[in-house]
Amino acid sequence: MNDRPVSEQSTRIAGAARRFVEFFGEFQDLVDRAGPDRCDFIAGNPQERAIAGYGEALRRHSESDDPTWFAYTMSLPKAQAAAAASLNTLLGTDYRPEDILLTNAAMAGLAACLRAVCDPGDEVVIVSPPHFLYEPILMATGASAVRVRMREDDFDLDVEAIEAAITARTRAIIVNSPHNPTGRIYPASTLTALAQVLTAASERNGRTIYLLSDEAYNRIVFDGRRFESPTLFYAPSFLIYTYGKTLLTPGQRIGYIALRPDIPGREDLIGALTVSQVVHGWSWPNALLQHALGDLERLSIDVPHLQERRDRMVSALRSAGYELHSPEAAFYLLVRSPIEDDDKFVRLLAEREVFTMPGSLLEAPGYFRISLTASDAMIDRALPVFAQAIADAST
Amino acid sequence: MNDRPVSEQSTRIAGAARRFVEFFGEFQDLVDRAGPDRCDFIAGNPQERAIAGYGEALRRHSESDDPTWFAYTMSLPKAQAAAAASLNTLLGTDYRPEDILLTNAAMAGLAACLRAVCDPGDEVVIVSPPHFLYEPILMATGASAVRVRMREDDFDLDVEAIEAAITARTRAIIVNSPHNPTGRIYPASTLTALAQVLTAASERNGRTIYLLSDEAYNRIVFDGRRFESPTLFYAPSFLIYTYGKTLLTPGQRIGYIALRPDIPGREDLIGALTVSQVVHGWSWPNALLQHALGDLERLSIDVPHLQERRDRMVSALRSAGYELHSPEAAFYLLVRSPIEDDDKFVRLLAEREVFTMPGSLLEAPGYFRISLTASDAMIDRALPVFAQAIADAST
Repeated sequence: MNDRPVSEQSTRIAGAARRFVEFFGEFQDLVDRAGPDRCDFIAGNPQERAIAGYGEALRRHSESDDPTWFAYTMSLPKAQAAAAASLNTLLGTDYRPEDILLTNAAMAGLAACLRAVCDPGDEVVIVSPPHFLYEPILMATGASAVRVRMREDDFDLDVEAIEAAITARTRAIIVNSPHNPTGRIYPASTLTALAQVLTAASERNGRTIYLLSDEAYNRIVFDGRRFESPTLFYAPSFLIYTYGKTLLTPGQRIGYIALRPDIPGREDLIGALTVSQVVHGWSWPNALLQHALGDLERLSIDVPHLQERRDRMVSALRSAGYELHSPEAAFYLLVRSPIEDDDKFVRLLAEREVFTMPGSLLEAPGYFRISLTASDAMIDRALPVFAQAIADAST
Repeated sequence: MNDRPVSEQSTRIAGAARRFVEFFGEFQDLVDRAGPDRCDFIAGNPQERAIAGYGEALRRHSESDDPTWFAYTMSLPKAQAAAAASLNTLLGTDYRPEDILLTNAAMAGLAACLRAVCDPGDEVVIVSPPHFLYEPILMATGASAVRVRMREDDFDLDVEAIEAAITARTRAIIVNSPHNPTGRIYPASTLTALAQVLTAASERNGRTIYLLSDEAYNRIVFDGRRFESPTLFYAPSFLIYTYGKTLLTPGQRIGYIALRPDIPGREDLIGALTVSQVVHGWSWPNALLQHALGDLERLSIDVPHLQERRDRMVSALRSAGYELHSPEAAFYLLVRSPIEDDDKFVRLLAEREVFTMPGSLLEAPGYFRISLTASDAMIDRALPVFAQAIADAST
């Protein structure tokens, strides 16, 4: 008798997500039970009121005389046009509105792309440390993850190791630039080399290896740097974006897949992506968010202020004795744990109501992660705690 | 060389959806190109301004001083509480807030349930005519659909045929009451018999057969009838609901899965459903819709007016010579086509800018479907066209 209540495949997928689910469950409870002075650096989540103009944009599009305003909605042409125009301004590209497929933020876009191209037995290369949802999402297609470690010295892609990891079953690689949690923007030289490797391997295999480019942080860039989209270097690419970081509204799910106008197999891919969005439960963004997208595209969190936070924290943490680099982009500081057991150190901080994420959970053992989306008041309160904790650890 | 751009599994799933995708593609174009007097009876889609109070509810919850207002959102407790209270009023049940899992409407709920319980090789019984998305969604789990025809005389479930269709690999049955397109509410006697069959077959198989109850139309009920939820008769049941019909806002995705408090394997199921929602791309409803749910629960389309539309159209169509039954519930009239080729008849109507759905597409050959969500003005204009079309067909 095999009366397990749940499927074997969902048990397998749950296994890949279990440590994160447990961590979030436990730490969300700790945060909720902590006092009003708690400092929450765990995730890229808002700790302050939504940015100015956000609620107004929602309100403005909440009513219309148009009978179709809240009818079944796939990708609305005006939302596609707004996204394409903005992306072209950022990247200097020529995306057309019809190249943009609206999705329920980045994870729904990633899930749709993977389902469109992967079969059971396929392999998908992911760069370690990866986002914790990459492996569960790709496993849902029957594919398996093949990890390639980033270069430890400069956090760049290790293109030689990627080349060595590719097999006849490799169907895709997921690249995340700017990278969570290192903040690394992969340089053009690396992306050129990656494209050469993927092109050669696709030819060798007689089967295209797709590049899935998770660009959630492509507008959260510091020091006037230029963001290089990996998709510009390789035609069989999906550019996957979410507005959840730029607007710091991760509970309002909207983002897109941008297909290069010259992507091979374009019509087949659009058909398969559409079916994927259907079978994931109609994973297009809500009508309201699509109506509002032209307005939302004009908004952003205060990136210069985020950069000031980065500088302040990097400086203060270094002064206190921590080792860390100053990230080029994204939301996170990746800090060397003063003791080898980063999980233990994170728990010591949590006892003082300063909540961070252990690097061992992120495939970055020996580190812990701080999100810069914490408020300035949280940073004020936390810096002395960080200083005390490293002092205690050294004694 | 096998350089197909898309996966074999997505090609297979697309095959199951192809006729619908083609129909909607072609007919949406026809509707868009038609004049302002077009009459759109194709889908359960709004043809008039959103109901009073809907936009106001969205606006009211578009801003808050709460920093977590638009943070990562799974099921918000206040939304769970609002849904549970409303469901208990409808059904006389004792659902607790924690028994409600919010989803991006019914299709996301159905997809999550199927992924949570089905493995490749499993079979899922669906009742023909089924919703056209059931088969593509269940195929995405690796399962296959087994069709059981409804009883043709009264549109009730054919419980004997369901019993005969069950095999050792049967994992679930999807039941839709009130049923699209017949409007049938399955009676308690049928549901009792169904539960007995499912219980016996689960014991015989040593593996639970789940009942997935699609109750999208459970509040769109006519003539003061009582809706019987199939889930009240069988513990291993998922009740799946969407607000998209009751509020007639199918582009605003919110609904839920309700788990009976006594469902066997409850904790394992909740874990698997959570992972399923994650891997479908975070398929929880947007924060805004969850914040607004308490207000939205107080709203509904005008069901008595829908019933008047039903009566008016049934009477007028019968007077014109059409054969049809008066539905107990839901949005649709299922009308016998005056000529055998229902697709041809639907195209004749479409030439006169009256747009309906052919029964052959719906697994109801010889019929065509009319959605009562059309406006009264559309009905005024369409009735003479329907009358002329059957007169022409008889000559």
